[in-house]
Amino acid sequence: MRIPTLALAAALLAPLTATIASEAAFAPDALKTAAYLRDLANGGSAAYDIVESLTTEVGPRLAGSEADARAVAWAKAKFQELGFDRVWTEPVTFPQWRRGVELAEVLAPYPQPLHITALGLSVGSNGPIEAEVVAFADLAALSAAEPGSLDGKIAYITNRMIRTRDGKGYGPAVGARSRGASEAASKGALALLIRSIGTDHDRMPHTGALQYAEGDNAPPKIPAAALSNPDADLLTNMLRRGQPVRLRLNIDAGVVGMATSYNVIGEITGSQYPEQVVIIGGHLDSWDLGTGAIDDGAGVAITMAAGALIGDLKTPPERSVRVVAFANEEQGLFGGKAYAEQHKAEISQHIIGAESDFGAGRIYALRAAVSEAARPQIAAIGEVLAPLGIAHDSEGGGPGPDIIAMAERGMAWAQLAQDGSDYFDYHHTANDTLDKIDPRALDQQVAAYAVLAYLAAQADGGFGSAAKPEAP
Amino acid sequence: MRIPTLALAAALLAPLTATIASEAAFAPDALKTAAYLRDLANGGSAAYDIVESLTTEVGPRLAGSEADARAVAWAKAKFQELGFDRVWTEPVTFPQWRRGVELAEVLAPYPQPLHITALGLSVGSNGPIEAEVVAFADLAALSAAEPGSLDGKIAYITNRMIRTRDGKGYGPAVGARSRGASEAASKGALALLIRSIGTDHDRMPHTGALQYAEGDNAPPKIPAAALSNPDADLLTNMLRRGQPVRLRLNIDAGVVGMATSYNVIGEITGSQYPEQVVIIGGHLDSWDLGTGAIDDGAGVAITMAAGALIGDLKTPPERSVRVVAFANEEQGLFGGKAYAEQHKAEISQHIIGAESDFGAGRIYALRAAVSEAARPQIAAIGEVLAPLGIAHDSEGGGPGPDIIAMAERGMAWAQLAQDGSDYFDYHHTANDTLDKIDPRALDQQVAAYAVLAYLAAQADGGFGSAAKPEAP
Repeated sequence: MRIPTLALAAALLAPLTATIASEAAFAPDALKTAAYLRDLANGGSAAYDIVESLTTEVGPRLAGSEADARAVAWAKAKFQELGFDRVWTEPVTFPQWRRGVELAEVLAPYPQPLHITALGLSVGSNGPIEAEVVAFADLAALSAAEPGSLDGKIAYITNRMIRTRDGKGYGPAVGARSRGASEAASKGALALLIRSIGTDHDRMPHTGALQYAEGDNAPPKIPAAALSNPDADLLTNMLRRGQPVRLRLNIDAGVVGMATSYNVIGEITGSQYPEQVVIIGGHLDSWDLGTGAIDDGAGVAITMAAGALIGDLKTPPERSVRVVAFANEEQGLFGGKAYAEQHKAEISQHIIGAESDFGAGRIYALRAAVSEAARPQIAAIGEVLAPLGIAHDSEGGGPGPDIIAMAERGMAWAQLAQDGSDYFDYHHTANDTLDKIDPRALDQQVAAYAVLAYLAAQADGGFGSAAKPEAP
Repeated sequence: MRIPTLALAAALLAPLTATIASEAAFAPDALKTAAYLRDLANGGSAAYDIVESLTTEVGPRLAGSEADARAVAWAKAKFQELGFDRVWTEPVTFPQWRRGVELAEVLAPYPQPLHITALGLSVGSNGPIEAEVVAFADLAALSAAEPGSLDGKIAYITNRMIRTRDGKGYGPAVGARSRGASEAASKGALALLIRSIGTDHDRMPHTGALQYAEGDNAPPKIPAAALSNPDADLLTNMLRRGQPVRLRLNIDAGVVGMATSYNVIGEITGSQYPEQVVIIGGHLDSWDLGTGAIDDGAGVAITMAAGALIGDLKTPPERSVRVVAFANEEQGLFGGKAYAEQHKAEISQHIIGAESDFGAGRIYALRAAVSEAARPQIAAIGEVLAPLGIAHDSEGGGPGPDIIAMAERGMAWAQLAQDGSDYFDYHHTANDTLDKIDPRALDQQVAAYAVLAYLAAQADGGFGSAAKPEAP
């Protein structure tokens, strides 16, 4: 669909926020079009319908599963339906993990069930394990335990994640999930339990990938699972009474072989420099517990909708806008790494990249890692974003997870930072469902991605992307 | 524990809220003691520790289960520990229901799992049922369907409960749960699904008892389950697309025979008229999904703590204060009915009753059904409660569920109405856990129950309890 003449005329009459700084960085027409895209998207975008479609028609899509294959087909069809100029897939190969039955109960002194979920990539328990629990305040406390001190025991890490807008509580807490199993095994533990890495008080545990230590001296791989926050409270209250607490755990899970999925890519072809690419996207896979609405159906929908709006412009952008629905982010950033490997010879042609993978909360800041010369252009983009309530932070931030591998190779990146205050209430749980998404907030995000991608595609001189000689 | 002299002296110096009205209804000493109990409890009571103990040391306690028997032992021990003068049990017999595996999935056109839980007292499905879903806006719409129109189908009632402070959204919605199965069966349906009767957006379905129609012409008993609200949204969104939606349901549940549990009763013996009883309480049983913190560990804890405070007074109340932890409320008010049957000859001696069974939110109103002559006494109790933010409503309200059977026989009742705005977010779900309780709100409720029970025990002339000739 091209812009109706009437709508374009209305956009041209709309007040511009462009100042001298932005006019120096971009041609007036580009700024006008960016403001038009912003206001059009912010007034109502396709994003909610896209994520409704993905969560309803596909739902949970664990990487490598049959549902993941349906998600790939869905994404190709959706890019085509949205009018992208080119749609293609690129293969991504990874170990396929599956989840089976997962049960936990207190045997003594206070028998009752506990709600757990296996951490992603966890091995199974090969039948029930019955053992006493030993609690640790955090990963450091577990690491400080004597080797052998957990022989025949279940280690339990109790740390609680702190709620913040930018999600900075995640980093200090998540080590328990990612590295706790091998730490516990190195002390002799049979299994690891953690308090869910999440900020909610709901009885739904949070999964998420662990990483076993590898190598000749690595400890054995032991099963690992998260307790919901209320269950962690319960277990802690039992332990506080001072008697030994014995649990039974039965976890059926494990890697079943290698699988191939696909990065699904839709492109709006640039009119002047089609080989030069602005890359935006989200990840298509999800954990299996929820329907993957906020993680990361929202990111896929936001960037698909933003790309489609640019594709609907009467005059195409000068450079190409590429939207990537990345494969298997959850279990080790496989899609982003595969993309970077596949396109490692084209770093300088990827002029900038940005991923939406932090839920569906409103965007409050633009940040970027670009060349000194490109800073005025980022500032100019910030000026166009300002009416959306988005501030330009000249420092800080980081690339989205699937952008990291390209950024490490030298690609410039931008971040449209979202309010993640409630993101870790739902993240990696069964509660990651469509009702957690505010359609109006999604529209604001589409507006921001459309402005960023469009203006980046019009920017002369690029943002400093250049292959690093030392990069992988 | 008796009141330390110093604390009593301080209480006597505290400002009194008594007015001429209350002074006419109660002796000044009674009002002083009531105000002392109020301020003592409101400043910090034993209730939170009691409900923490019940949920931690017993947890879920489905009526008739082994855990229910442990709950009975817990309640006896707790009454004794709290210094009640008399502690005893009275048997309550009922059909024992059990829950097994419960699974639901969409087979076509959009395969994915759905989160369900069987309704209490539901029969099982005797293996998987595969059938098409037919949606109805509410029970009335289902009732209006033609007989035979649901042959071989699964009926699905979509109505959503409305959130209110007083829970009045429950009544219009809950018919789908209580009567939907027999209605659906009368139209030929194989099974019933309902949107959970709850106000939340969490992926935890709400259970609750159904009632099958009985009698020679009753339709067959079919399995019935609730979808979580997000799953109901999902199924509705699938159906909106217009293609037939086929599900597989597998529900293992049913009544396994008769069981006996116990009303557990603790009494503070009255000094003047020990045979005259003020009865307060909550119900000891819970559904099996959560730990029964708000439904109704809170009610048990509040009334136990209130009774214990009265028992700690230097001067005992004139009449007895009886705290009842009722058996099996959830599956049909069995405990309340058994109590009424057991004590039917003593209606006039049960001078007034009140039950706490609406969660752990603050009390905002006192209501009562008493004789005209006793209204000044209720008003006087209201004056003592006013500093707790509790208004006296001279009309409306209703007795707690386990009080109904006694009220029907002629017992006067009072209601301390709680703010239930979030009660139906957690009610009958796995999310009914300790973290949902604010200890300070619990203290306010203990204060209110202590004032009500104490002053009722000091009231001359009673509240109008009298056996109705026509009562059962």
